[in-house]
Amino acid sequence: MRPSRRAAEEMRAVSLERRVSKYAEGSCLVRFGDTQVMCLASVAEQVPPWLRGGGRGWVTAEYGMLPRSTGDRMRREASQGKQGGRTMEIQRLIGRSLRAVVDLKALGERQITVDCDVIQADGGTRTAAITGAWVALHDALEWMRARDIVKAPVLTDHVAAISCGIYRGEPVLDLDYAEDSDAETDANFVITGSGNLVEVQATAEGKPFSEEELLALMGLARKGTGRLVDLQKMAVE
Amino acid sequence: MRPSRRAAEEMRAVSLERRVSKYAEGSCLVRFGDTQVMCLASVAEQVPPWLRGGGRGWVTAEYGMLPRSTGDRMRREASQGKQGGRTMEIQRLIGRSLRAVVDLKALGERQITVDCDVIQADGGTRTAAITGAWVALHDALEWMRARDIVKAPVLTDHVAAISCGIYRGEPVLDLDYAEDSDAETDANFVITGSGNLVEVQATAEGKPFSEEELLALMGLARKGTGRLVDLQKMAVE
Amino acid sequence: MRPSRRAAEEMRAVSLERRVSKYAEGSCLVRFGDTQVMCLASVAEQVPPWLRGGGRGWVTAEYGMLPRSTGDRMRREASQGKQGGRTMEIQRLIGRSLRAVVDLKALGERQITVDCDVIQADGGTRTAAITGAWVALHDALEWMRARDIVKAPVLTDHVAAISCGIYRGEPVLDLDYAEDSDAETDANFVITGSGNLVEVQATAEGKPFSEEELLALMGLARKGTGRLVDLQKMAVE
Amino acid sequence: MRPSRRAAEEMRAVSLERRVSKYAEGSCLVRFGDTQVMCLASVAEQVPPWLRGGGRGWVTAEYGMLPRSTGDRMRREASQGKQGGRTMEIQRLIGRSLRAVVDLKALGERQITVDCDVIQADGGTRTAAITGAWVALHDALEWMRARDIVKAPVLTDHVAAISCGIYRGEPVLDLDYAEDSDAETDANFVITGSGNLVEVQATAEGKPFSEEELLALMGLARKGTGRLVDLQKMAVE
Amino acid sequence: MRPSRRAAEEMRAVSLERRVSKYAEGSCLVRFGDTQVMCLASVAEQVPPWLRGGGRGWVTAEYGMLPRSTGDRMRREASQGKQGGRTMEIQRLIGRSLRAVVDLKALGERQITVDCDVIQADGGTRTAAITGAWVALHDALEWMRARDIVKAPVLTDHVAAISCGIYRGEPVLDLDYAEDSDAETDANFVITGSGNLVEVQATAEGKPFSEEELLALMGLARKGTGRLVDLQKMAVE
Amino acid sequence: MRPSRRAAEEMRAVSLERRVSKYAEGSCLVRFGDTQVMCLASVAEQVPPWLRGGGRGWVTAEYGMLPRSTGDRMRREASQGKQGGRTMEIQRLIGRSLRAVVDLKALGERQITVDCDVIQADGGTRTAAITGAWVALHDALEWMRARDIVKAPVLTDHVAAISCGIYRGEPVLDLDYAEDSDAETDANFVITGSGNLVEVQATAEGKPFSEEELLALMGLARKGTGRLVDLQKMAVE
Repeated sequence: MRPSRRAAEEMRAVSLERRVSKYAEGSCLVRFGDTQVMCLASVAEQVPPWLRGGGRGWVTAEYGMLPRSTGDRMRREASQGKQGGRTMEIQRLIGRSLRAVVDLKALGERQITVDCDVIQADGGTRTAAITGAWVALHDALEWMRARDIVKAPVLTDHVAAISCGIYRGEPVLDLDYAEDSDAETDANFVITGSGNLVEVQATAEGKPFSEEELLALMGLARKGTGRLVDLQKMAVE
Repeated sequence: MRPSRRAAEEMRAVSLERRVSKYAEGSCLVRFGDTQVMCLASVAEQVPPWLRGGGRGWVTAEYGMLPRSTGDRMRREASQGKQGGRTMEIQRLIGRSLRAVVDLKALGERQITVDCDVIQADGGTRTAAITGAWVALHDALEWMRARDIVKAPVLTDHVAAISCGIYRGEPVLDLDYAEDSDAETDANFVITGSGNLVEVQATAEGKPFSEEELLALMGLARKGTGRLVDLQKMAVE
Repeated sequence: MRPSRRAAEEMRAVSLERRVSKYAEGSCLVRFGDTQVMCLASVAEQVPPWLRGGGRGWVTAEYGMLPRSTGDRMRREASQGKQGGRTMEIQRLIGRSLRAVVDLKALGERQITVDCDVIQADGGTRTAAITGAWVALHDALEWMRARDIVKAPVLTDHVAAISCGIYRGEPVLDLDYAEDSDAETDANFVITGSGNLVEVQATAEGKPFSEEELLALMGLARKGTGRLVDLQKMAVE
Repeated sequence: MRPSRRAAEEMRAVSLERRVSKYAEGSCLVRFGDTQVMCLASVAEQVPPWLRGGGRGWVTAEYGMLPRSTGDRMRREASQGKQGGRTMEIQRLIGRSLRAVVDLKALGERQITVDCDVIQADGGTRTAAITGAWVALHDALEWMRARDIVKAPVLTDHVAAISCGIYRGEPVLDLDYAEDSDAETDANFVITGSGNLVEVQATAEGKPFSEEELLALMGLARKGTGRLVDLQKMAVE
Repeated sequence: MRPSRRAAEEMRAVSLERRVSKYAEGSCLVRFGDTQVMCLASVAEQVPPWLRGGGRGWVTAEYGMLPRSTGDRMRREASQGKQGGRTMEIQRLIGRSLRAVVDLKALGERQITVDCDVIQADGGTRTAAITGAWVALHDALEWMRARDIVKAPVLTDHVAAISCGIYRGEPVLDLDYAEDSDAETDANFVITGSGNLVEVQATAEGKPFSEEELLALMGLARKGTGRLVDLQKMAVE
Repeated sequence: MRPSRRAAEEMRAVSLERRVSKYAEGSCLVRFGDTQVMCLASVAEQVPPWLRGGGRGWVTAEYGMLPRSTGDRMRREASQGKQGGRTMEIQRLIGRSLRAVVDLKALGERQITVDCDVIQADGGTRTAAITGAWVALHDALEWMRARDIVKAPVLTDHVAAISCGIYRGEPVLDLDYAEDSDAETDANFVITGSGNLVEVQATAEGKPFSEEELLALMGLARKGTGRLVDLQKMAVE
């Protein structure tokens, strides 16, 4: 049995709360159980230097955690003078995931930065961040459209993400922290609304895993992201 | 007339929401109007090196802002590789303010760090942070007391803070961002529950100010912190 | 047709040259075609602070590139004052991959660091690094065994890695730089000698990919790592 | 009695020595007793990016201490790789204080930087720095005027600063290090030649202070800055 | 007798292997015995900001060591966040040595950077780097000439470098690590093909040395660099 | 003729002013003409980690320049976040020079740090610093001796330094800034009281130099350091 008493295919309660910021052009507070991530999308009329003059835009993400968003207080990255490797990995993943469903040409030479800041962490912060960042990005694009800044559709699909893992020998969906720190295999899946894969990252934490196990996890993940996309649709309607 | 249509002595709606964190030993989400600061207190069984062996504890604070907590997105301090001067000034001020009402001997060789992270900024983040941090600190000390980690009372008084300023020639209480960026003089007062001063910081943004103006601001501040202390009392009862 | 005129399942010439260092306890210069990575394993009689006293050892990796190992000169990370996100991601991946086939208890409280420095880059540096690092690690462990520093077997299996991708609609094995920069999907597989998966990282560079495509890539990767493990066996015999 | 045997209202010997640099457009070595600060003003024909094109200039300050300007050697900030919070606070304060008496429009799009480097520290370095920096700034502006770089008067008033404190229960003027480290309350006042306040910073080091005490300190400070402004006048005549 | 059993005037086996990089415009792997340095020259069509518009080019160098190029593993400079003083000294020396034989006007507004990365260190890495960097620079200039990027000759002479030292009272040529760490005096000479001096750096490691000793070392160095220049000539013919 | 109208062998006016610090155990303000360097020696009862337990002490130096010690204001190293290569080179040179005349065993497990801060720079700051640092070191050792912290003599000789150069074809002694920036060859000599060489650093700024020229410079330098040692003797008597 899972520590949370959930069934193997059972996700935690997920909520996507929009318009949580007075300033950001798009915003979403996403909750996967006790995990809470604030996703704030900011529009800028300038792209990074290496993209200038090419007529294409850019979507990127930054990720951070409040020092006491976790069980033990972590050192603040700003006072340490650098972002850790895990932070960089995650913010690169969020950015790639969003770009997979964005038509950068239709965006024009503009940049949207989605800041994903973890208010409380209980496992799955990166997948919650991707799922919520899509909503913030959607709203920022709506904001631009309402002002005729963009004309053609920029978003080409939904994108959502979920973690799965082999916990005590059994594939389970949506790991919380207690499971995550104990799982033999931990996998994150980023999947579009039409069911295609954007990113698969599976890692053996303990012993290596088999292809069958990976496929079982992928099956769970498809169900999970299917539900997440439904929630995104309800949220933005 | 103030942009917010408030009367000169009128504060914004203030709320102090406790127990907003699953992990922190004490926590408070403080709101001064649209300004929101998450204050999370963490207890550690170790003091900084320069205090070891002296039998006294330490209380300190760290301050940060979400990059899009403001009207224009700021660069993330963690990715810039250092905390700015304003950040350092504010976190030092919060720490000093809290220590003014703490008996460090009664705390014993332990450290409490209060992380004050601005979720949304609309002026007065440092004064909101001090006011909310007191609640988080209070609850962390209650948590310690319930576990017999400390025995004697550690908190000696309340402490709260408020900003005032000369806006279009008139002294007003609790500046929001629109007023703050336009005020001729900007002052922050940190005052204890018994009405004594812990810190006074008054700055001429435009033309220098007179002693009378400073006294007028101090009078407003006393009323403000009096009400804030009342709210703290209601919150922790 | 691939730019290199290779067949879809054809790997580049791979070589694993041992004992390329006068100093390192284990060393291997690995070549995947024009990609060259120097892997040097260093033994230290001390583990990181968070592992001390637990009776277990640690295996870690660091990754770097000579500034002109690539077509355009990159800025030197040492003079920039920080390692980039890609560097951190890769060195974390190499370390995890090696630890998946190491019995950290049998290693005892010691650390082995494998430095993987790219002398020349033509795609696939991280997978070449993992494959060569296993040889360097093997030799460092032999060195320890010859001196009775470790007694029980520490390595539990082989581990090797290869990249695959969808290039112009077709799954191909072992991408070189020309293919990598043009591939629609790029995947790295880390697989043990017994055929189990240690890490799967698949990324849609352009449009999302299907489960079938992922499975096709995995099939290619299995063949590739099978051959790499054979080469490792020949090398260390 | 004060450790220095001075009367409560008695300042240390103050000197303002001009033209101490072969290169700086304005310069002043200021001494408050054993405290010595070298103030060097540099004129640049360029303002920071955020001011460009606005027709206004900028005055700023930087502050540093020689590592052995103090009783115990401090670590050199340049070798630590960052300026501490205290340094940043002080240099921001000096810059604000100078700008309070400068007509930035009359200055035109130019920047004057006043470097305040503490050669020897015995308390009151920030107030000495402000007092001496005014002289250096004055001379740099005279240098510009002599070359017709500026035409209209740029300086609108004098500005000087002094510290006061409650020492063993009594308000005293111009704290030296022995008093400063022992004072219950420590306050810095920045006051113009016409007697208006530019900045008030009062801090309870031990127990909180009353409004009466603050007013007593302010009374002392007015006398002190009055005398400092007289010394500035004599110096620049 | 020297630890290496070499005669006092005997250099180690030196080799200069060209065209060791697929990408660099000029490249040389230089070996002085077990010391191996990869020298890669990169051409850029832009000079540093302080040279722009002056019609002159720039030649510079960067230096690094693989962490396990030495007997004990060193910390990686990229992960430490800064280059050490020794690294900076050496790369400045290499750059100055090369510029002494370059006509920067004939180069035009372009920059050549020679990266000198130590693959294995056994003493004399900086002198090997200078000697090999000349070859890499030569080839990069040939590459430019073949493309009519430069027309007039840019290189004005050869330049090579060698270390000498007083080892157990006797002047010896080309110190290896065992001698270097034990020598009383250590000197590096950078000498042109025509026998003139570009740089002399002589350091008393133990007791101070006499003028006669310096002259004896210089005599040895002249012989050494004479042979190195012959090897450069053979290499580039 | 030299810009300063000095004869070729003529040094600038040199002064060595002792006891210029209230705190440092040894101190000297050294002037070579308009070059002024404050040298402050600090005694610590702890050696760096790599020396602990060996019964030997350490002498080291740090070097810095006030930002406007030069004709054009330089950026402050503390605010740039790192010391430049030139700074590191110079402080390493000063440390080595002092250690050449110190018996580290007689010093015992203690460290003396000499901070050399340039108040005003007009060429020759590193040689002035070495000459003045010897005086500060001497006085710190006297201070220790008076307190019986050291017993046996620690200083084994004097050490002084001077720069020379080929200016408009002629060897001249003690370059000032105007000469230094125009000299073809620039050399620094560190010489003991008994006339032995501690460090020779000669650099061709323009065209390479001959052995005869180096010897001519060395002859000048011997005269210069002879006079500097005489001044040191007068200063400490």
